[in-house]
Amino acid sequence: MAGSSFGTLFRFTTWGESHGPAIGVIVDGVPPRLPLAEPDIQQWLDKRRPGQSRFTTQRQEPDQVKILSGTFNGETTGTPISLMIENVDQRSRDYSNVADRFRPGHADYTYWKKYGIRDYRGGGRASARETASRVAAGAVARKILGPDITIRGALVQVGPYRIDRTQWDWAQVHENPFWCPDAAMAGQWGDYIDAVRKAGSSAGAVIEVIAGGVPVGLGEPIYDKLDGDLARAMMTINAVKGVEIGAGFAAAELSGEENSDEMRMEDGKVAFLSNNAGGILGGISTGQEIVVRFAVKPTSSILKPMRTVDSEGNDTEIAMHGRHDPCVGIRAVPVGEAMMACVLADHLLRHRALGGAI
Amino acid sequence: MAGSSFGTLFRFTTWGESHGPAIGVIVDGVPPRLPLAEPDIQQWLDKRRPGQSRFTTQRQEPDQVKILSGTFNGETTGTPISLMIENVDQRSRDYSNVADRFRPGHADYTYWKKYGIRDYRGGGRASARETASRVAAGAVARKILGPDITIRGALVQVGPYRIDRTQWDWAQVHENPFWCPDAAMAGQWGDYIDAVRKAGSSAGAVIEVIAGGVPVGLGEPIYDKLDGDLARAMMTINAVKGVEIGAGFAAAELSGEENSDEMRMEDGKVAFLSNNAGGILGGISTGQEIVVRFAVKPTSSILKPMRTVDSEGNDTEIAMHGRHDPCVGIRAVPVGEAMMACVLADHLLRHRALGGAI
Amino acid sequence: MAGSSFGTLFRFTTWGESHGPAIGVIVDGVPPRLPLAEPDIQQWLDKRRPGQSRFTTQRQEPDQVKILSGTFNGETTGTPISLMIENVDQRSRDYSNVADRFRPGHADYTYWKKYGIRDYRGGGRASARETASRVAAGAVARKILGPDITIRGALVQVGPYRIDRTQWDWAQVHENPFWCPDAAMAGQWGDYIDAVRKAGSSAGAVIEVIAGGVPVGLGEPIYDKLDGDLARAMMTINAVKGVEIGAGFAAAELSGEENSDEMRMEDGKVAFLSNNAGGILGGISTGQEIVVRFAVKPTSSILKPMRTVDSEGNDTEIAMHGRHDPCVGIRAVPVGEAMMACVLADHLLRHRALGGAI
Amino acid sequence: MAGSSFGTLFRFTTWGESHGPAIGVIVDGVPPRLPLAEPDIQQWLDKRRPGQSRFTTQRQEPDQVKILSGTFNGETTGTPISLMIENVDQRSRDYSNVADRFRPGHADYTYWKKYGIRDYRGGGRASARETASRVAAGAVARKILGPDITIRGALVQVGPYRIDRTQWDWAQVHENPFWCPDAAMAGQWGDYIDAVRKAGSSAGAVIEVIAGGVPVGLGEPIYDKLDGDLARAMMTINAVKGVEIGAGFAAAELSGEENSDEMRMEDGKVAFLSNNAGGILGGISTGQEIVVRFAVKPTSSILKPMRTVDSEGNDTEIAMHGRHDPCVGIRAVPVGEAMMACVLADHLLRHRALGGAI
Repeated sequence: MAGSSFGTLFRFTTWGESHGPAIGVIVDGVPPRLPLAEPDIQQWLDKRRPGQSRFTTQRQEPDQVKILSGTFNGETTGTPISLMIENVDQRSRDYSNVADRFRPGHADYTYWKKYGIRDYRGGGRASARETASRVAAGAVARKILGPDITIRGALVQVGPYRIDRTQWDWAQVHENPFWCPDAAMAGQWGDYIDAVRKAGSSAGAVIEVIAGGVPVGLGEPIYDKLDGDLARAMMTINAVKGVEIGAGFAAAELSGEENSDEMRMEDGKVAFLSNNAGGILGGISTGQEIVVRFAVKPTSSILKPMRTVDSEGNDTEIAMHGRHDPCVGIRAVPVGEAMMACVLADHLLRHRALGGAI
Repeated sequence: MAGSSFGTLFRFTTWGESHGPAIGVIVDGVPPRLPLAEPDIQQWLDKRRPGQSRFTTQRQEPDQVKILSGTFNGETTGTPISLMIENVDQRSRDYSNVADRFRPGHADYTYWKKYGIRDYRGGGRASARETASRVAAGAVARKILGPDITIRGALVQVGPYRIDRTQWDWAQVHENPFWCPDAAMAGQWGDYIDAVRKAGSSAGAVIEVIAGGVPVGLGEPIYDKLDGDLARAMMTINAVKGVEIGAGFAAAELSGEENSDEMRMEDGKVAFLSNNAGGILGGISTGQEIVVRFAVKPTSSILKPMRTVDSEGNDTEIAMHGRHDPCVGIRAVPVGEAMMACVLADHLLRHRALGGAI
Repeated sequence: MAGSSFGTLFRFTTWGESHGPAIGVIVDGVPPRLPLAEPDIQQWLDKRRPGQSRFTTQRQEPDQVKILSGTFNGETTGTPISLMIENVDQRSRDYSNVADRFRPGHADYTYWKKYGIRDYRGGGRASARETASRVAAGAVARKILGPDITIRGALVQVGPYRIDRTQWDWAQVHENPFWCPDAAMAGQWGDYIDAVRKAGSSAGAVIEVIAGGVPVGLGEPIYDKLDGDLARAMMTINAVKGVEIGAGFAAAELSGEENSDEMRMEDGKVAFLSNNAGGILGGISTGQEIVVRFAVKPTSSILKPMRTVDSEGNDTEIAMHGRHDPCVGIRAVPVGEAMMACVLADHLLRHRALGGAI
Repeated sequence: MAGSSFGTLFRFTTWGESHGPAIGVIVDGVPPRLPLAEPDIQQWLDKRRPGQSRFTTQRQEPDQVKILSGTFNGETTGTPISLMIENVDQRSRDYSNVADRFRPGHADYTYWKKYGIRDYRGGGRASARETASRVAAGAVARKILGPDITIRGALVQVGPYRIDRTQWDWAQVHENPFWCPDAAMAGQWGDYIDAVRKAGSSAGAVIEVIAGGVPVGLGEPIYDKLDGDLARAMMTINAVKGVEIGAGFAAAELSGEENSDEMRMEDGKVAFLSNNAGGILGGISTGQEIVVRFAVKPTSSILKPMRTVDSEGNDTEIAMHGRHDPCVGIRAVPVGEAMMACVLADHLLRHRALGGAI
């Protein structure tokens, strides 16, 4: 596969299947002498952990991280950091339902065709469980970024319901189970997802991740542009089908004068009068907020029977039961934050290599 | 920078500034014994070449490609292919307008801050002229893909005007200067862009690129997923602000049963009953058409004066004059096709390494 | 660091410190459906394991490997294979001797200067214990190579004593504790190392690794030549100071006609009349045996007090005590074999990507 | 191939065949604002240029370098630097001698078997002409290293004749056509190579390259160790068969106490009392001189007829005529220097990324 790594200087490699003994990540390229202990990582894993509200899967995974290497006396040493999370909620169950049939919307069919073998238990390697490793890597990345660079995510759309952006309040994000910055919309989403869940269906979502305090200059044109790397980072998260920066697709409808962010000096510093660019021009950060949005498709595991085929080439049907997220987008928020942190940390180190004044 | 390369096994590296003596690309990792001569590449460059209608810049660049290495007796040899395009329309002109002032929406400010120096003539390295090198690389990639894999692009939106998808006719794409598959909409776009151009403004666009005949199995989970690489590929094209696969952002509004593409056996083969996935599940091609869309912002170079600052930290204004595309999205169509070809060629080789039956 | 990975398509990443809870390796890029279980790996680790004769360290490490991911029902799945080896012989001991003083010949000083922090227990990351991870990766690589490609290593020099190459007998390699193919020399080495050990000193060695059955065509000119990758592979093994291919340094003394291996057809196949090239021409395998030799310096941990400095900048002395290999070169044999296997597996996959008929 | 690139942050990619229109190199990852003009590069190419004495090939190549991108007003801009050297001495000649027959010791056979096609004119891509591109890249690397890091190479052995190291005088290196630091030996070599040349034979050589002023801390354990990268760098130079660091193979004969370089404080700095390590411990530079030696086999192109086979599978003979270096090792000196510069520049940037105080 050799596709399990991400990053150039700050580089992490994940491993593990949903129902194997454990999953984990090796984070390589971390500068030395950063304070790092398990609680620094655990706090972010806890944000992603399932079963925290009725709107996410009831699967119980403590997702307890262990640091196996790379630190000494509570500090990073510059050597690879091995993080492991044991899988404890591997119920012994009957997989005959999914062993030979391909769940629509899942990677079952493509893994089967590509590899001729697949670990069908809980999705195996293709399970969103892999994103816990990303969150762990992101926790390390934040240590590199330091406290002045802030990364915050929010859900801005669930199914057809979008937040009222004039009501954006970051404080609200921690007051509801949806990371919703619009208090009124949070209530509406609750009703909607309850209905979706009871109907055995599922809902999609759009996540927005914003990084503040990012210095101007991060990103390596042409092919390692900051936005290119962010697009890849977010698109590789399970179930993501679209990524946009700043005004995104809406930019196509703007005129040149509406879209181009004008500049003025303010207190001796360059200030942009708008941020349609989402904080990136020519693939390089402008010093404004980095704004990324990504769309998550509705959970493919639904109760309703769907038409499919089996590995023997027969038409058949499949219906999922058990514990699934009605809207996987909710738990994608900390994952999107983590990927933002990893991309920024990598480019911070790369910029520093060029002599960047960070 | 070390950011000028793209791909793993099929890997190209571009170089050159808009107003230097030439631009070019090294294409490495090309299998041997593929027929390749300059006209094979030139035909695609001609599609991208400016000045072919009143809707693109009137800058005249023949964009004549030369093969400097990597072929022998009309075939590739397995060694790196060096392609060069001389810059011939470098008018001697006065750059004092842009030498010290940062054009809003352009990379002027960020290059200046990142590097402390910039070649301001015509945008230098950040100019969309770089995309000619991508088109040349894409022409080589198509040789690897062979005739059974088809790649076609179309403009599906200009400013606020979207095509009627029920009117999609690929034949139309070559009948109008917009790569528009909807004949009626092509006329409407003509009027719209004429008006935009006369107003000294510019328009954005959305491009759709579709690859047919792609075998199932391309893509390397987790971080080298086919969609992740396509997202990066498209997002690094100049002026792109969003990328989506299949249903894309619209997937967020679908229910799980609407979104998940059901399967049935047809003539002994697996057939999907819809293609919301855009031909990719779990980061691996499904055998369906690969469908990618990307949004291009309106050209930042407009006649209207815009507020900006200069390199000395003074408030000022800038207005562009000269030859600019009123809608850069038009010429992005062959570039998007080329990037699709490059991503597929790379993953075809990677899949073959695993023993994939291609 | 981001320096803990090796390989392009077959790519492994190691982690772990000598005295941390465990060490391990992620092997990514392994083709699916190869039979793989823990004993397949354990057999090679057992060859490297210390404490098997009086000529290696008496440290007792069972080096029991666990497969944590990447296999299903006894076969590889194409997903990353996570292998872990717990450190069980971490005696609680007093490290005050080495915590602040730099052992000559060791990486203590350079790690300290580079990172400003170091895990001084047992050498930390710089310990030769890391090579157990290489051996584990090599075991997986051998599965890719299959039974027709054989990799065998031997010790050909200990201190000043070189084997008589006319006495080379592969069967002897398993009959003495030195992997010595020359039975008479094995006895002499035993006496020599006994004397060295009793004197509290140490000895260097030269290892030769030979791969047979390698098809012609492996290696990617110019910078990923097979010999270039082998040189890097061997030079990164702890304590290695030189690498040579085929005739190696002796080639400098040959004439052109002596050195160039002539060719003749034999039974319809190309046969070389000698192998000064060591099976590689122009960075590509010739189909002959691949022959690599590398020199291992004498163990730096010796009983004799050596002059050194401490981290406070004071002159001091240091003498090692405890359990050390009098000749680390002995245990480097399986490590060299493993690195050969990893390089060949990577290039086999790369060659296959180009359409190579393997 | 995708094997034509070298380096991680300072990364160059070469292209071109011996008898194509030109050869060249793209140097990516160069920090901005370094003064760079063509003479800065030309001076090093002139050192490598053939035809400067009767001891090198009489082929006349001016090797005039052109900068095609990446500089502006005499300074680097941070964008890729494209360097091109036109091939001007491509005599129209008869290649029937080599078109179908494989020259022993050359890459003819392996390129043919790997690619099924080869540009047989002058060795094509496998020609040592490629090393001119390395020298050009090295010239750029030296700009990154700055004047405090010095890189010097010398020939220390020709055929069986080794210099007397007690007579080492750097000034002598420029006083004879062999880069020989031992004046007496230079004369002896002249006689020897004259005899070799007249006999239609050829001679091997050993080159030593020494870098001074290198700060402590360069190198990334484990697999990107400084010595590992140097070994790969040198081994990929045409005709190189061995590489060693510091004491190298001789270290195998030393005792632990002889080999381990002791340390003492001198003027407030750490001083090593010897340099058997060749300036590298644990893969990281110690601050001492970096010392690398590599062995170059005798030129394979000799006048004496050699037995070989042709591409049809027939036994045949081949004898070279024309202009060949009797000892290619002579012209490898500036190439080895260039590769040293490139490796150090890459690791300098990588170390800086980690926060290294350079």
